[in-house]
Amino acid sequence: MSVKWYEKSGDLGDIVVSTRIRLARNLEQYPFPSRLNAEQRKVINSLFEDAMKKGNSTIANDFDFISLEELNPFEARSMAERHLISPEFAARPEGHGVILNKDNSIALMLCEEDHLRLQVLSPGLALNEAYELAEKIESLLSETLNFAFSQRYGYLTECPTNLGTGLRASVMLHLPALEQVGGIQSLSKTLSKVGFTLRGTYGENSGALGALYQLSNQLSLGIDEYTALDNLKGITHQVIEQEKAAREKLDEMAIWDKVFRSYGILKNARILSSKEFFEHISNIRLGISMGIISDISIETVNVLSNDMQAATLISRYDEAKDSANRDILRAKLVRESLK
Amino acid sequence: MSVKWYEKSGDLGDIVVSTRIRLARNLEQYPFPSRLNAEQRKVINSLFEDAMKKGNSTIANDFDFISLEELNPFEARSMAERHLISPEFAARPEGHGVILNKDNSIALMLCEEDHLRLQVLSPGLALNEAYELAEKIESLLSETLNFAFSQRYGYLTECPTNLGTGLRASVMLHLPALEQVGGIQSLSKTLSKVGFTLRGTYGENSGALGALYQLSNQLSLGIDEYTALDNLKGITHQVIEQEKAAREKLDEMAIWDKVFRSYGILKNARILSSKEFFEHISNIRLGISMGIISDISIETVNVLSNDMQAATLISRYDEAKDSANRDILRAKLVRESLK
Repeated sequence: MSVKWYEKSGDLGDIVVSTRIRLARNLEQYPFPSRLNAEQRKVINSLFEDAMKKGNSTIANDFDFISLEELNPFEARSMAERHLISPEFAARPEGHGVILNKDNSIALMLCEEDHLRLQVLSPGLALNEAYELAEKIESLLSETLNFAFSQRYGYLTECPTNLGTGLRASVMLHLPALEQVGGIQSLSKTLSKVGFTLRGTYGENSGALGALYQLSNQLSLGIDEYTALDNLKGITHQVIEQEKAAREKLDEMAIWDKVFRSYGILKNARILSSKEFFEHISNIRLGISMGIISDISIETVNVLSNDMQAATLISRYDEAKDSANRDILRAKLVRESLK
Repeated sequence: MSVKWYEKSGDLGDIVVSTRIRLARNLEQYPFPSRLNAEQRKVINSLFEDAMKKGNSTIANDFDFISLEELNPFEARSMAERHLISPEFAARPEGHGVILNKDNSIALMLCEEDHLRLQVLSPGLALNEAYELAEKIESLLSETLNFAFSQRYGYLTECPTNLGTGLRASVMLHLPALEQVGGIQSLSKTLSKVGFTLRGTYGENSGALGALYQLSNQLSLGIDEYTALDNLKGITHQVIEQEKAAREKLDEMAIWDKVFRSYGILKNARILSSKEFFEHISNIRLGISMGIISDISIETVNVLSNDMQAATLISRYDEAKDSANRDILRAKLVRESLK
C-alpha cells in the first residue's frame, strides 16, 4: 500500500485535521442522476473513466476505477468511514463508481447526487492547494467532457444549494476545549448566520465523535471560488483562536490528567470500542497539540483515526466481523501502533 | 528508615496480604482502662516501657516508646491507616502510648480497651510465626508484670468477647473475584456461623476498599491458641480456593483489560484520589497474582497501599494538607514508584 494522504500532517495540523474540497459537476447531455437509468449510469461511469485515462499518463496511472458493485459492503462502508465517498453512496452500490488515486487524496464519485462529485482531501489547512488540485483534475476532464454551465448561474447541479461554483470547501477541526466549555452550539449558530456550517464530523445529526467538527461554506452562488475559500480560511482562523482561548481557561492539571489517562488506556487496554477509541484519541490529539505528549505524532493519530473504525477493520481482518473480537483487535492494533 | 515488615512478601502473598495477631492483656493490680484516671494511665505506660527495656538489649534497642500526645493528629491517623493502632486509639491521644519496633511489625498499644493490646503483623499467611513472636514478647513482659488471669476463664479482659486467650488472629485477604461475582455476603454469613468474621478491611461498616477483607477468629474462650490458629488457617485456605475458583470463571480478556487499564492509569494519571488508587492497585494485585503483570512486585503494591493514604501522605509531605494537591502528589508518587 502506498502512503495515504492522511499519513502526513499539514499546516496547523494539531487543530485542523484535514481540508476537503468538493466540486459538483454534471454532463450537459444527460439528465441529473436521480433520473438516470442503469444503462445511462454505466455510460457516464465509462465517460469519466476514459476522460481520466486520456489525460497525461502520470495522472492516469495514479488512478483506479472502482465499481462499488464489485466491493463487499464492508469495503464500501470503509470508504465512507474514511470520507472517500458519502455513506449514502456506499449504501447503494448499483451503478456507482469511484475513481480514486493511490494516496486516496483525490476521489471522483460518479452518479452520486451529481454526475461528478470531485473531492480532494489534504492534511491540515490547505484550502487553496486542495482547490487548485481539484481545478487541475476538472480541467483535465473538461478536455473531453462538457459540463453543464449557465452564464447566469454558473455550474448546474441537481440540488440548487450547489448551483454556481459547485464548490463545497470544508475543514475538519478538533475542538475539544470548546466542546468541554459548552461553546459549540452558540458558535454554530453564529457561523450559520454568516453562511457557514459547523457540525459533528461523524453523522449529520449525531454528536461529535472525538470532538471532531466539520466547518464548511454554504454559499456557492454569486461568489467566486477564491473569495469563498478566503472567507472559510478567515473563519477557520477565528475558530482556532476561540479553541485556543478555551484551552487557556481549562485547568492545566486536569488536562494533563485526562491526556495521560487516555495515553495509559490506549497503550494498555485489551478491549476498546470505537466510541471509546475516539474519546481517547481526541485527548491524545489535544495532548500533542498542547505539548503534553511528545512521543506520539499527529500522523499516527490521523492514521489510527482512519483505520480503527468498524467497517475498515472488517474489510481488512476477517476476525473483526464479530464485534467482541473487533474491540479486542482494535485494542491490539492501537497498542502496537503506540508502542 | 529501616525496611518495614510490609516491604516483604510472605506465603500466599498474592492473596493473603498480611497476618495479624493480637493479644489482649491486663495488669492485675489496676482497674480496666475505661476506669483508669490520667495518673494511672501514665503509670501503666511507664510500667510497659520499663518492662520492654529490661528485656535483653537486642529487643530493647529495637523498640521505641511513642506518646500519642506528642504526635500531631496526622501522624496518629497515619499509624491507624497502617494498622499499627486502632482508629479510636488514634483519635484520643490523652494517656495513650505505643511501643513500636523498627520494622513496625510489633506494636504494643497501651491503655486501649485493655492495658495491653500486643499486635504482631506479618506479610502473607504466617499465623504460627506471628503468634510465636507475640508469645515471646508477652513472656518477656511477664518477667516483670503480672497479667490478670483466672484459672477458670483464662486471661481477663475488659470486654468479655476477648476473655480466655485474649487472642484475635486475622488475615487480610484480597478477594476481587469473589467480590465481583457477588459472593462475599453469603461467604460472610457462612463464616459467621462457624465463628469467623469477614469484613472490609477499611472501616467497620464501609464497603471494602480495594477488595481487601479481614478474616478473623471470634472465639477466645474455651479454645487453646494453636487450635484457634489452625482453624483460621484451614478457613483461610478454603476462602483462597473459593477466590481462585471465582477467578477461573471470570472472562479472561475482560480481566486482562481491567488489569492493564489500571496499570496504564496508575502509570500515567496526574490526579489520583485515595478511593481510585485502591481500586486500581487492587487490579494490579490481581494481575500479579494471575501472572498478567510481571514488572510490578507484590512488595511494591504493599508499600504503596500503606503509604498512599491521606494521613500518611500529610504526615510526610506538607503540601499534602490540601486535598487537591494531595491527589496530585499521590499520582506523582505512584508514577515514580511504578516507573
